[in-house]
Amino acid sequence: MSHRIGRLHNFSAGPGALPLPVLEDVRDELPVYRETGASVMEISHRSPAYMQIEASARERIRNLLGLTADWHILFLGGGASMQFHQVALNFLPPGGQAGYLVTGTWAKKAHAEALRIGNGRVVASSADAAFNYVPDPAHWDLDPQDAYIHFTSNNTVYGTQFHYTPNVSCPLVCDASSDFLSRPIELERYGLIYAGAQKNIGPAGVTVVLVRNDFLEKRNTSLPTMLDYGTHAAKCFNTPPVFAIYIVEKVLRWLEGAGGIPGIQAMNRRKADLLYGAIDNSEFYRGTAETESRSLMNVTFRLAKEELEATFVDQAAGHGLVALKGHRSVGGMRASIYNACSLESVEVLVDFMKEFERRNG
Amino acid sequence: MSHRIGRLHNFSAGPGALPLPVLEDVRDELPVYRETGASVMEISHRSPAYMQIEASARERIRNLLGLTADWHILFLGGGASMQFHQVALNFLPPGGQAGYLVTGTWAKKAHAEALRIGNGRVVASSADAAFNYVPDPAHWDLDPQDAYIHFTSNNTVYGTQFHYTPNVSCPLVCDASSDFLSRPIELERYGLIYAGAQKNIGPAGVTVVLVRNDFLEKRNTSLPTMLDYGTHAAKCFNTPPVFAIYIVEKVLRWLEGAGGIPGIQAMNRRKADLLYGAIDNSEFYRGTAETESRSLMNVTFRLAKEELEATFVDQAAGHGLVALKGHRSVGGMRASIYNACSLESVEVLVDFMKEFERRNG
Repeated sequence: MSHRIGRLHNFSAGPGALPLPVLEDVRDELPVYRETGASVMEISHRSPAYMQIEASARERIRNLLGLTADWHILFLGGGASMQFHQVALNFLPPGGQAGYLVTGTWAKKAHAEALRIGNGRVVASSADAAFNYVPDPAHWDLDPQDAYIHFTSNNTVYGTQFHYTPNVSCPLVCDASSDFLSRPIELERYGLIYAGAQKNIGPAGVTVVLVRNDFLEKRNTSLPTMLDYGTHAAKCFNTPPVFAIYIVEKVLRWLEGAGGIPGIQAMNRRKADLLYGAIDNSEFYRGTAETESRSLMNVTFRLAKEELEATFVDQAAGHGLVALKGHRSVGGMRASIYNACSLESVEVLVDFMKEFERRNG
Repeated sequence: MSHRIGRLHNFSAGPGALPLPVLEDVRDELPVYRETGASVMEISHRSPAYMQIEASARERIRNLLGLTADWHILFLGGGASMQFHQVALNFLPPGGQAGYLVTGTWAKKAHAEALRIGNGRVVASSADAAFNYVPDPAHWDLDPQDAYIHFTSNNTVYGTQFHYTPNVSCPLVCDASSDFLSRPIELERYGLIYAGAQKNIGPAGVTVVLVRNDFLEKRNTSLPTMLDYGTHAAKCFNTPPVFAIYIVEKVLRWLEGAGGIPGIQAMNRRKADLLYGAIDNSEFYRGTAETESRSLMNVTFRLAKEELEATFVDQAAGHGLVALKGHRSVGGMRASIYNACSLESVEVLVDFMKEFERRNG
């Protein structure tokens, strides 16, 4: 079959690029999935064919991250934004408190939902400098009474990322939506990790939740059934987002083929070094995040001549480089280089940046 | 391309059959959706290409059902089970009450979630006869103090359906998951209607919510952001389940081509008459729902010789008739004949039933 246009270099911040072999595989399994006589969207979520897919996805995540048996792996609907509420509802004890690291738009929203439930304390914030850095742990306001500390490991909008695991005395709860499975996780410090799939591991519509059993057991009682993590840890309670999980399973297979976490981490580092190098070796471009807080996933930058930014985005699109416009709340440019963004795409972008600078510098 | 096996006659109760042209269309739009240079799963939910899809889906639902401008159309994640909680959280007033018609498994779960929030009264129940009928309105316990009355229009598990709109003095809230867009809705009696997509209108992963503005305005205050219907009525708050909505839009187009609601209603009636006719004209089969409460969507039946039921299901599968086993809580057989189940599939099933009776009667 022919397309009017082919695949472009996709730097979308999310929903983001998926590996081409995954999409081709999905196409080849339509309209009939294997021996089922129907597509994967039309079979019962309790059928062996589907249950195998979900079990395989779970097993692959377990192996990739090294999750021991005391970790539950849940596939929930509703998006990471629902987790902002659900985390606090389950784990902010009545009369107790939890700490929040407020390092960007999503961290702020997570904190706001905690405040609707109880005492969500601000441990540190980088709001004073438009969230362009991760606050120095030396100045965090830690409190041993916190039931958990919540942080957002990667800041999609402002292009910052935690490059260390926060060293605190209570379990960490992490929104890892935009860097999940891009690098290892020091699991022993965490109680719960959640990630909307649409950046690194699949399409929009499913949120992966990892929760350690001893943390789960500390949750509050009398929770609404669907918002109780225990419901989903115990069994398949309701119809899961079947198709999204089916894609996630394929992305996990692709990730294994790319060398698993060590392989993808090295590749992500290489892509980011290439792109930040191009920015740093030029007076024409400037990064917007503080150097030591820079995200390996979302590279935010501006032009010295800001009036040329719209032209940059337009001409980049003409070269097949799409979705480079920065988040509407920040402006400038943003290249999201998640797992599935290829080194080749980054190379083409860097070449274009050099050419654009030559013509306009 | 070749499949080891082709499409079978799919009677799955959910996720259920989708129209073949929809699946072929999806296949043809992989790995590149139109002019975007990426699949529909890899583009921003704020991109014109995606926003057009969502606007088109909304407009088609509006036209198919005749929704006036005072109705909001929301596409939410989390499944219909989340709505059990969300409805009560938004609309059960503190110190107030709401009525629940308990006519099956899902209605019972909806009621249980209301009880976690406040006073969810039972208006009527058919639990006394294994939910095989819809209780006579003459015996409903109505109360003018109810903020709303919740009911489940079609009972997927037991095969019953409301064949009239409940005539009550407060707004109706309806779980229409398993008969949504299979027939018209008398909108003026409703405040809110919700439907998990995976029966009649799409894949699992999105729940359509219709909410009338004057009802919405009566909701409680201080709600968690994601669970406040007002959040989603006001704007696109977070990443929606893009791919599921994309499929829904295609199913809606297909439904228009099938004559819209009047066309599909007539076809659904024809399919159900054919199947119930085969059951009623035989001593070998018997329907399990009371005649006047029979569902046009889920036809539940048993064999006079119950010991032959497993053989029936097995041999049907050998004839390409799949997913006929009844719900695990009920047993027997269930043929789910949602919108996308063709008349031909029902004809093949009825032929098989006659043949099976000849051989085993």
